[in-house]
Amino acid sequence: MDFEIGRSKRARRAYAFDDIAVVPSRRTRNPEDVSTSWTIDAFTFDVPVLSAPMDSVSSPEIAIAIGRLGGLGVLDLEGLWTRYEDAEDKLAQVRELEGDQVTAAMQKLYSAPIRPELIQSRLAEVRAAGVPVAGALSPQRTQEHYRTVVEAGVDLFVIRGTTVSAEHVSRSREPLNLKEFIYELDVPVIVGGAATYMAALHLMRTGAAGVLVGFGGGAASTTRATLGIHAPMATAVGDVAGARRDYLDESGGRYVHVIADGGLGTAGDIVKAIAMGADAVMLGTALARATDVPGGGWHWGQEAHHSELPRGNRVWVGQVAPLEQILFGPSPVADGTANLVGALKRSMATTGYSDLKEFQRVEVVVAPYRV
Amino acid sequence: MDFEIGRSKRARRAYAFDDIAVVPSRRTRNPEDVSTSWTIDAFTFDVPVLSAPMDSVSSPEIAIAIGRLGGLGVLDLEGLWTRYEDAEDKLAQVRELEGDQVTAAMQKLYSAPIRPELIQSRLAEVRAAGVPVAGALSPQRTQEHYRTVVEAGVDLFVIRGTTVSAEHVSRSREPLNLKEFIYELDVPVIVGGAATYMAALHLMRTGAAGVLVGFGGGAASTTRATLGIHAPMATAVGDVAGARRDYLDESGGRYVHVIADGGLGTAGDIVKAIAMGADAVMLGTALARATDVPGGGWHWGQEAHHSELPRGNRVWVGQVAPLEQILFGPSPVADGTANLVGALKRSMATTGYSDLKEFQRVEVVVAPYRV
Amino acid sequence: MDFEIGRSKRARRAYAFDDIAVVPSRRTRNPEDVSTSWTIDAFTFDVPVLSAPMDSVSSPEIAIAIGRLGGLGVLDLEGLWTRYEDAEDKLAQVRELEGDQVTAAMQKLYSAPIRPELIQSRLAEVRAAGVPVAGALSPQRTQEHYRTVVEAGVDLFVIRGTTVSAEHVSRSREPLNLKEFIYELDVPVIVGGAATYMAALHLMRTGAAGVLVGFGGGAASTTRATLGIHAPMATAVGDVAGARRDYLDESGGRYVHVIADGGLGTAGDIVKAIAMGADAVMLGTALARATDVPGGGWHWGQEAHHSELPRGNRVWVGQVAPLEQILFGPSPVADGTANLVGALKRSMATTGYSDLKEFQRVEVVVAPYRV
Amino acid sequence: MDFEIGRSKRARRAYAFDDIAVVPSRRTRNPEDVSTSWTIDAFTFDVPVLSAPMDSVSSPEIAIAIGRLGGLGVLDLEGLWTRYEDAEDKLAQVRELEGDQVTAAMQKLYSAPIRPELIQSRLAEVRAAGVPVAGALSPQRTQEHYRTVVEAGVDLFVIRGTTVSAEHVSRSREPLNLKEFIYELDVPVIVGGAATYMAALHLMRTGAAGVLVGFGGGAASTTRATLGIHAPMATAVGDVAGARRDYLDESGGRYVHVIADGGLGTAGDIVKAIAMGADAVMLGTALARATDVPGGGWHWGQEAHHSELPRGNRVWVGQVAPLEQILFGPSPVADGTANLVGALKRSMATTGYSDLKEFQRVEVVVAPYRV
Repeated sequence: MDFEIGRSKRARRAYAFDDIAVVPSRRTRNPEDVSTSWTIDAFTFDVPVLSAPMDSVSSPEIAIAIGRLGGLGVLDLEGLWTRYEDAEDKLAQVRELEGDQVTAAMQKLYSAPIRPELIQSRLAEVRAAGVPVAGALSPQRTQEHYRTVVEAGVDLFVIRGTTVSAEHVSRSREPLNLKEFIYELDVPVIVGGAATYMAALHLMRTGAAGVLVGFGGGAASTTRATLGIHAPMATAVGDVAGARRDYLDESGGRYVHVIADGGLGTAGDIVKAIAMGADAVMLGTALARATDVPGGGWHWGQEAHHSELPRGNRVWVGQVAPLEQILFGPSPVADGTANLVGALKRSMATTGYSDLKEFQRVEVVVAPYRV
Repeated sequence: MDFEIGRSKRARRAYAFDDIAVVPSRRTRNPEDVSTSWTIDAFTFDVPVLSAPMDSVSSPEIAIAIGRLGGLGVLDLEGLWTRYEDAEDKLAQVRELEGDQVTAAMQKLYSAPIRPELIQSRLAEVRAAGVPVAGALSPQRTQEHYRTVVEAGVDLFVIRGTTVSAEHVSRSREPLNLKEFIYELDVPVIVGGAATYMAALHLMRTGAAGVLVGFGGGAASTTRATLGIHAPMATAVGDVAGARRDYLDESGGRYVHVIADGGLGTAGDIVKAIAMGADAVMLGTALARATDVPGGGWHWGQEAHHSELPRGNRVWVGQVAPLEQILFGPSPVADGTANLVGALKRSMATTGYSDLKEFQRVEVVVAPYRV
Repeated sequence: MDFEIGRSKRARRAYAFDDIAVVPSRRTRNPEDVSTSWTIDAFTFDVPVLSAPMDSVSSPEIAIAIGRLGGLGVLDLEGLWTRYEDAEDKLAQVRELEGDQVTAAMQKLYSAPIRPELIQSRLAEVRAAGVPVAGALSPQRTQEHYRTVVEAGVDLFVIRGTTVSAEHVSRSREPLNLKEFIYELDVPVIVGGAATYMAALHLMRTGAAGVLVGFGGGAASTTRATLGIHAPMATAVGDVAGARRDYLDESGGRYVHVIADGGLGTAGDIVKAIAMGADAVMLGTALARATDVPGGGWHWGQEAHHSELPRGNRVWVGQVAPLEQILFGPSPVADGTANLVGALKRSMATTGYSDLKEFQRVEVVVAPYRV
Repeated sequence: MDFEIGRSKRARRAYAFDDIAVVPSRRTRNPEDVSTSWTIDAFTFDVPVLSAPMDSVSSPEIAIAIGRLGGLGVLDLEGLWTRYEDAEDKLAQVRELEGDQVTAAMQKLYSAPIRPELIQSRLAEVRAAGVPVAGALSPQRTQEHYRTVVEAGVDLFVIRGTTVSAEHVSRSREPLNLKEFIYELDVPVIVGGAATYMAALHLMRTGAAGVLVGFGGGAASTTRATLGIHAPMATAVGDVAGARRDYLDESGGRYVHVIADGGLGTAGDIVKAIAMGADAVMLGTALARATDVPGGGWHWGQEAHHSELPRGNRVWVGQVAPLEQILFGPSPVADGTANLVGALKRSMATTGYSDLKEFQRVEVVVAPYRV
């Protein structure tokens, strides 16, 4: 069903997580009997949670902590940790920025060059802890740095940008050929954001193990006001899950994981992402509220310090509880920002489902929030 | 009519009370000629009102008062009154909690054990007043305490949880078999919350006399943010009323009462609940505004003190008038929070109906509130 | 097109004036060439404006002023002017009420008896000024006072209540038989509020000259929260205009006037009422903003002082300009609250129409306001 | 698909820019490879931007600056610059107005007569700078002043009013016959606002080179509250683009440019206007935020000082950056108010398009903003 916007253009309705809700079924279940485990390639995780490669969330130390808690920490290999030896100091500087200077100061801080030896040492630190290692590069910098990353040793390689396509056109320089790149690489690749069926299908055909669904940011992003581009997440996840299903058939059985990335601020949002077909979630804002992550209550992404066209802000998300409590409770608050995994389990139990794959079939309704 | 949310998922639109309104017909009637009486099992009530089993609303004293006013007071048998001899003191403590300590302090207060002798004495107090006696347990505690309750003597037995299903699955312990339980019990059972046609139909098949429609809370609940689950009430009541009609046919004439529970903050909401097919309403917030109930202007439910995953808050609802005026006026305010029964009668009269069963047929329109 | 609200209920979408907008056509016209004249029965008015019979708006003096400005002033024959000799003093008292006492004090003031001799003298005052005379009674009091009214001499008789039906049912006393009443009366009758096609059609069959479209109030009303009843005005006017068309056919040519009453706060709302098919508008809030009406910036209706179930408030609407400027400008403000007739003319001219009857055909779009 | 508003009226849904968003496709592109050039008649511009002929935006000096930056500055020939020799002083006066006096003071300032010699000297100043010259008159004043304008020499002649039709009806004086006027004129004419398919088609048949799409104002306008008229921009642009396509066929190949005018406050809005089919945009608010335009952070249009029926306000839009940065960055903010052209290029690149004409085909979705 599409709508006529004007005589020369028709459009589909696209839905945000806030536009929908999960509804109970006729069966209930005990939360203890519910599994949230997730397996991608050779790796099995107790919880379907990846940390977003953003400086406010993922330091080497936090990546290790998340690994130990059963998830996957993903390092941003273009952030402060690979630009500065003393990243901690620089993080403190970002946290303390005030008023009008924020954007300009961040633009300056992030203009320092990326140092290959820091990529190596940061990844080595995580590897030494015995947890799965994952690092993220943008498509623009993948060719320059991927060898360093692979040599340092990663278990999962993440290519993440605002919008990543399998077919990038450039007159000035040879663009990254994703298909060849992934084929030659030894490690599984997770790539995105993709927000539409067709974009995701093409990414799946490159051989990616997983596709990030999103348009480059959540709470801290202003993509819609600056670029006019917006891909409401419930529809985006549902469309990419549709591409997974069709590609499964087309490829004779290759299952590409769908990872929702962006707009996942509460446990309720995570529940809805999986209900719409996601296999796992990449969390920024939701983890930035931990008391022990680098942001210290602040959250920002790479869009916030773009030199010509910043498309995001450093936003205050507050501090709720330590990381472990954010994930597993007990929750000191009743607003869906802590005990994310406990809430997911209870939601699955309340609607009668016992694992994530089954839960992708739960019924949803259109029921917009009233603010 | 359903909508494509994404390629892999379709959904119905679900409506809240705020999304709809009752419209006049071609006939009007005198309010004095209207009856609001409601009969369930052997009991007839002047007003179709049950008090919610919540500590902010239903003390033994208030249950008696509501019974005398023509409704049904329902005691929470897992609240402060069955945990403490000096429940009044504990209620005062809850009312006086401040700021950050509220959730933690409530979790502590409600961790005291439930004492069978208090269940008995609280119910006996209500029985002694000569009004119908009703008490509520959660499904998890029904097996442990129901004998005490039945021996103490109740006229109506209420099993109430966030979501109650006829088919609960548990690996760790034998779940409550509702059908056998209700069959063996001598008193009529009201059970819920159920929010969908299928869940309600299965509950009706267990032999319940009434089904509570809701998802576990109203103004004080944050189920949507924490669990991603939401069942807008107008649609939920209409669906469960549909199950009542179909079960009436299937059972050869057994009429199971539909009781709207949650989201009924004003007289207008009560009107809409009955317009959507409810036989009666269970009121929390609306009664919590009485000057003589225990909450003292505060309102909270069992979700607010869950030990691992609180899904509600103690909220300030204010104090409007004594209970009798809240129900029967005269109303000192014009916002639909007092003279609830007078408003219901006038609404029925204005649209030309003379009893509740007829009024379930009144016409409604989709007309969202603008905030 | 209707929607399933739940399995047991379907509903139409109903639209408020704020949900729609008028769109230009391919023709434009000079505002000076536009006529707003309106003829009902033997009376022709320069502007299709009736003042609402509310104490904040229509005193005898203001009724005269509106008559001289080309509209029709309608006196409330159950307000302060027919209860008190010194109505001016009582109006001053209402204006000066503060805080919590407002509702109770108004209930007291309006409990004084209606005095027939004051009905006569107030109407005589208007008649003496040589303008058309109109007075309004509620259906409940019409039988008691209509003789007094007719003897005092009115040109148009208004029967106005929250909801008026042609078929009122009462066990306690013989209700007003509108059809007989109107048949026997010598003066044309305007009756309402009616908000649906069927209710309006039945009122038209009683012989009424005009039907008021509304549900008993605008900005000052809380009917929706108290009674759950709401009839969004764009749909209500459109439905009643549909009844006018069908009754015209059924009656072999009797044209019953459709008068929008309520929810007309700005010039834009008046434009939309006529676009939806209204022949004229009855204005409360819009005139209450005049500096020379009795409300003095306050506005209230009869619902505000109901003894058992007040369904409205005394609300502050502000003071914008003298009555003449409110109607004809020049406007000192740009928010649609002054120069109402100038704005109507310009709107008609901008869309290419030259009289009110034609303008009822103008195209509208669904385009909800964003607040 | 249209909706029944009431029994006597049906309506289409109309969409604002805020109701829609652009979605990525399967291809991406480098922003440097994207062209934003626009050609109308004999003139080619680097950027598809016209400044709105409003005193807060377009002085002769700014028209020159915009020309040098690759756009088209359009002078208001009925503003302060053609009424006063010392327009700078008068602009300062408007900027300094306070509180209640604003509307009245502006009405007074703008009541001074338009002086032909000032029309000539202002246009000459722009011509002398070697950039394309454009001036705007309202339809009411076109006959009186067009000779002066043509003699002064303009490259593009703009006729701009709230709503302009090809068929204006007047009893008092001979209206402007647009078709004859344009036929006889030597310079290309841009005319509007038109907001519907049919109105635009008729304007295209007059021989206009371009049609302005709008209803007479953006952020500073209150047309909807005062006149009840509203033409949401996404639908309006899409409808007029449909008229362009149909007229192209009807005329055997004459391409009339569609220029969105109004409601374009951010880069995202500009992106959406072109996505809906616009060839270029006329910017008011977006340029009024420049630190070097005359408004000094204030913005107002001709509706704000109408003598009888003001339909707009002088509004504070703030000051963001110098004009050049507003257009080309770098942007100091992340809210879409600066680097408008950079954002447009990036949006085109992100969705895989390389020129404006192609980008008119980009996919959009219905995805209302939540405020």
